[in-house]
Amino acid sequence: MKLARALFAPRAVALIGASGDAAKNTARPQRFLKKHRYAGRILPINPARAEVLGERAWPSLAEAPGEIDHAFVMAPGEAVEQALEDCGRRKVPVMSVFTDGFADAGEEGMARQARLVARARELGVRILGPNSMGVVDIPGRLALTVNAVLEMDTLPGGATSIVSQSGTMLGALLSRGAARGLGFAKLVSLGNEADIGAGELVELLAEDADTQVILLFLETVRDAERLAVAARRAHSAGKPVVAYKLGRSQLGEALARSHTGALAGADAAFDAYFRDCGIVRVDMLETLLEIAPLVAGRKPPDLDRAARVAVVTTTGGGAASVVDRLGMFGIETVAPNSKSPIVDLTMAATAEKYTAVLDDLLASPQCDGVLAVVGSSAQFHPQLAVEPIVRSKKSAKPLAVFLTPHAERSLSLLAGHGIAAFRTPEACADALAAYFAWRSPRTRAAAASTEWPPNWPRRGRLDEAQALRLFASLGIPVAEHAIAQPPGYAHAVPYPVAAKALSAQLLHKTEAGAVCLGIADRTGFDREVRAMLGRVPAAREVLVQKMESGLAEAIVGYRDDAVVGPIVLVGAGGTLAEIYRDYALRLAPVSEEEAQEMIARVKGLATLRGYRGLPRGDARALAQAVAALSRLALIRGRPVAEAEANPVIVKGEGAVAVDGLVVMKE
Amino acid sequence: MKLARALFAPRAVALIGASGDAAKNTARPQRFLKKHRYAGRILPINPARAEVLGERAWPSLAEAPGEIDHAFVMAPGEAVEQALEDCGRRKVPVMSVFTDGFADAGEEGMARQARLVARARELGVRILGPNSMGVVDIPGRLALTVNAVLEMDTLPGGATSIVSQSGTMLGALLSRGAARGLGFAKLVSLGNEADIGAGELVELLAEDADTQVILLFLETVRDAERLAVAARRAHSAGKPVVAYKLGRSQLGEALARSHTGALAGADAAFDAYFRDCGIVRVDMLETLLEIAPLVAGRKPPDLDRAARVAVVTTTGGGAASVVDRLGMFGIETVAPNSKSPIVDLTMAATAEKYTAVLDDLLASPQCDGVLAVVGSSAQFHPQLAVEPIVRSKKSAKPLAVFLTPHAERSLSLLAGHGIAAFRTPEACADALAAYFAWRSPRTRAAAASTEWPPNWPRRGRLDEAQALRLFASLGIPVAEHAIAQPPGYAHAVPYPVAAKALSAQLLHKTEAGAVCLGIADRTGFDREVRAMLGRVPAAREVLVQKMESGLAEAIVGYRDDAVVGPIVLVGAGGTLAEIYRDYALRLAPVSEEEAQEMIARVKGLATLRGYRGLPRGDARALAQAVAALSRLALIRGRPVAEAEANPVIVKGEGAVAVDGLVVMKE
Repeated sequence: MKLARALFAPRAVALIGASGDAAKNTARPQRFLKKHRYAGRILPINPARAEVLGERAWPSLAEAPGEIDHAFVMAPGEAVEQALEDCGRRKVPVMSVFTDGFADAGEEGMARQARLVARARELGVRILGPNSMGVVDIPGRLALTVNAVLEMDTLPGGATSIVSQSGTMLGALLSRGAARGLGFAKLVSLGNEADIGAGELVELLAEDADTQVILLFLETVRDAERLAVAARRAHSAGKPVVAYKLGRSQLGEALARSHTGALAGADAAFDAYFRDCGIVRVDMLETLLEIAPLVAGRKPPDLDRAARVAVVTTTGGGAASVVDRLGMFGIETVAPNSKSPIVDLTMAATAEKYTAVLDDLLASPQCDGVLAVVGSSAQFHPQLAVEPIVRSKKSAKPLAVFLTPHAERSLSLLAGHGIAAFRTPEACADALAAYFAWRSPRTRAAAASTEWPPNWPRRGRLDEAQALRLFASLGIPVAEHAIAQPPGYAHAVPYPVAAKALSAQLLHKTEAGAVCLGIADRTGFDREVRAMLGRVPAAREVLVQKMESGLAEAIVGYRDDAVVGPIVLVGAGGTLAEIYRDYALRLAPVSEEEAQEMIARVKGLATLRGYRGLPRGDARALAQAVAALSRLALIRGRPVAEAEANPVIVKGEGAVAVDGLVVMKE
Repeated sequence: MKLARALFAPRAVALIGASGDAAKNTARPQRFLKKHRYAGRILPINPARAEVLGERAWPSLAEAPGEIDHAFVMAPGEAVEQALEDCGRRKVPVMSVFTDGFADAGEEGMARQARLVARARELGVRILGPNSMGVVDIPGRLALTVNAVLEMDTLPGGATSIVSQSGTMLGALLSRGAARGLGFAKLVSLGNEADIGAGELVELLAEDADTQVILLFLETVRDAERLAVAARRAHSAGKPVVAYKLGRSQLGEALARSHTGALAGADAAFDAYFRDCGIVRVDMLETLLEIAPLVAGRKPPDLDRAARVAVVTTTGGGAASVVDRLGMFGIETVAPNSKSPIVDLTMAATAEKYTAVLDDLLASPQCDGVLAVVGSSAQFHPQLAVEPIVRSKKSAKPLAVFLTPHAERSLSLLAGHGIAAFRTPEACADALAAYFAWRSPRTRAAAASTEWPPNWPRRGRLDEAQALRLFASLGIPVAEHAIAQPPGYAHAVPYPVAAKALSAQLLHKTEAGAVCLGIADRTGFDREVRAMLGRVPAAREVLVQKMESGLAEAIVGYRDDAVVGPIVLVGAGGTLAEIYRDYALRLAPVSEEEAQEMIARVKGLATLRGYRGLPRGDARALAQAVAALSRLALIRGRPVAEAEANPVIVKGEGAVAVDGLVVMKE
């Protein structure tokens, strides 16, 4: 039996640990299944009772009759392991586990979870959870969950499905949608994702006939590779995937060994990851719900310029509250055939006029999307502007509606017609910004194509000369340099030069006095090297580099992220990238064209673009260096953990790396 | 008769232009007054009807009987001017004008408005509007407005009053509040503010016994001085003032003549202004409503360190959605007596436990505020966590509640008990951030205390030598300099020096080739000066400056803003302030201590604070320069429009201005 069928359309459900006390959490699945008219058999399993809430109960799964497709486990402690054995014996294909105390409960729990999953694999039983609130399939009338919001009398059906790492928030989204006329197909609480994860569910939903849009509430991503594949599959099936992810303000793990590590905080890496997968990322909780009609049936706009939105409104202040925020996202407000940036019908609104203006804007080639704002009339006089919106001639262009008063019936009316309507100006702007930033999934690079040279170090940190050699081998120009050795420290690099004590152990060279810049001649060189080696007794050799100068400094970094995989970063040089978080980040590898796009997003590299009449730098050469470093992702086995060229000096022609850091995984 | 009485508690209201067609806008005031049980006399004025909606009507105000306290004018065109004359004759003290076509309608309308106000002054009639939607006083049962949301059956009474420049949004706020159990006292639509403005209304509300919190919906500020005084009066009366202001993404007028002009865009100046007045500024529309119970009865926390919030929740995901955003505002999450930063009762919540934890947190000296989050139970089982919140022991500490599901009854229950409850995690975080950023109004500096020297230029731009002289006279150290004159261009400044062609007309000196840095000796000086004067034939004299170097560069600017008055700015030097909008801005003048606080907010001046082990710069000397420049605000008549020292070079000891720009108002 296929997983999707067992999960969402089981012919019989066993409720292991079902309580006979209707007030208890563990009585809810049975109550909710009945309340929402589940058509299959319900089998409460309770060793202490022959009857549970009016239903015949069984002391154990072993004794329950007939074929069972799905077991929902609420019993505490070792009963979970027992239930798994029973499922194996009874050939129950899937078991959803509400019980906690696994990976959610420290190291011991993690080990317990690993044993559970290993045993499930042996038995051929699939597991949702543990610590999952369960599964809801509204068209299929399955309410197999402990979430209290299922107390609602009718469940709102629709074509949006939700996969959530938080069971409570799954309920919150369902509850908020129901109040607004937004309907759902399938809702799944992932819990710990011990076995069935977000990626597999997105795969299932990509093939689900009832699902048109897939929403993800994420706290983290546990299997980035699988979710990436699944998102591409959903894209091919024409089903947009939208994510709300927590963790925007945390910089994540202790990756502060290099600048790149500290910069490429977990959240920026997730941004790059979602973009790469073609997943729309929203910033606000309600946007996750409200955006569904905006993306449903649409493809990524793949814009490579600022988006232009046309606005029609019956309230100047209401329109401004959205337009103001659109401006903060760099979205332009345009009004075809009008001088004002907004078509304001405040004093002149009639239903006919509203429809006419809206149809004009939806048909106009001069804008990429339309925002319709309705003021006080939305609450008690929907015929004035809300109904004209319903009647407007839909186009491929996205239409977003913001209603200024409390107007739930109008919101529901719009939702019922598949029109994206927003309760707050902020979510409305967030959704439009997320829509216009939406891009098709990037074609993934082919498998590893190059080898790590056999005679190169495979562990620890490379010293700087080795790092520069690696960069050169990737095709990144590096400053002319030589290694000067004792006793004479001879070298042929032309003066002025920089001298650096060579040591892979030295983390902060400048602070340790291991760097001397701008040495003018041999006499100076001898004096400085002597002094430097006195300060850094561990070093014997000296890296001598030609002094380089240019128009701008950049940092180019690479990191093999523990969650999302290899990423590449380019930022303004010096301390700017760090102080201002001014960098662009993508999954690696990137092409030269993609690197150019990244560079265009870095404010501090404005100088390269001829800022204030200053000479232009060779952005293309920098882009080539970014693309080159990103190819570390193509080395078989991906042995490099982190690499950073900082600074890369960008000149009028060319760019050259003058300092390098490379850390291997081992 | 006092204005407040006539505006909010008129004994009789004349409705000039009242329509007999109940479906028309102009019939609404009469319908709403009746519907919401206005106790005074209603006098429809309509030259075409003897009866309007069942009420005896009068052909003109002149013929209407008895004393009339408030006239509401909806009649179009010249009828407004006629109504004013009639009000004057009948001694009607206040006239609210809904009719548009005044300052809202171009130059001609502006002139018309000016004439209207001038005549009103002569007649002793006060005007609200034109283009105002009117006035609502809920405790006083006055619904004198055309706003359609007044169709609602009962108006929610409360202690919050709203003053709005958008009539529609006033209705939107009332409507949203009503749906949530948030009640109001007085609501005023300002319209064009031809006569009665936001400042005067805040003054009235500061004295209004029914009003505890004053909310402002602003598109701009028309009389900053008066609103500033009124906000201070409200503060003294213990009534918090909160503002939502549009225009965040616009940089305002064409003030790009200098960096300071371009930087200190309208919105940053408004931020400084609100802070100065002790007005709480919120970022999101619904925060404006939802924050009222959070500030009611409280004083500004005046925190000078990061705020610490303790969190109790029944849902990890729900708490994280708020906490994540608090982190983005720099607010710390703390959990007294617990290892986790959040007290998560997800699986362990009982009403007793929730109350106990909440009371502990509210009493704890280790946090500045408490966030209570409630999951699914908030919708159908308020007894589990929502009611325990209602029972908690209130303290001076602010308590914010976020409910994850759609739970309007619980929101109303909390609102009814004066507890701040939020519908979205974003508004919840926005409110807490706004609360913790709230400061007492700053004591305003005494009146102008210095004179502009009589022999100094009073118009146009000063040349750079004059600008440096002005800075020095204010107490800002300037680089050693001299003016070298033809024919010999002799000077006594020690080499190396910089030479600059002196001309007040030259705007972009570097681009024009009018600056030469790092001249090593006299020979070089002669050569460079000759070449420079060849490039800039308008210049005759040359400013010679000692070359200065230091640890960091800053920009210090002053501008007499057309809206909020004198402001002072400090930012990172070079192009950083501009590219990253990295600056701090306050109303001028500021003290040295305030300037220190400003400097601490500029990320790019981190180097001054010993960033990454670099030597510390003399932040105090920079602060002295900021305070000194800000004293331009104290010169009688404030003749300076803009002044900028850029860069100010900050050394290990001292700071010195090396370039100056001063533009006079005339």
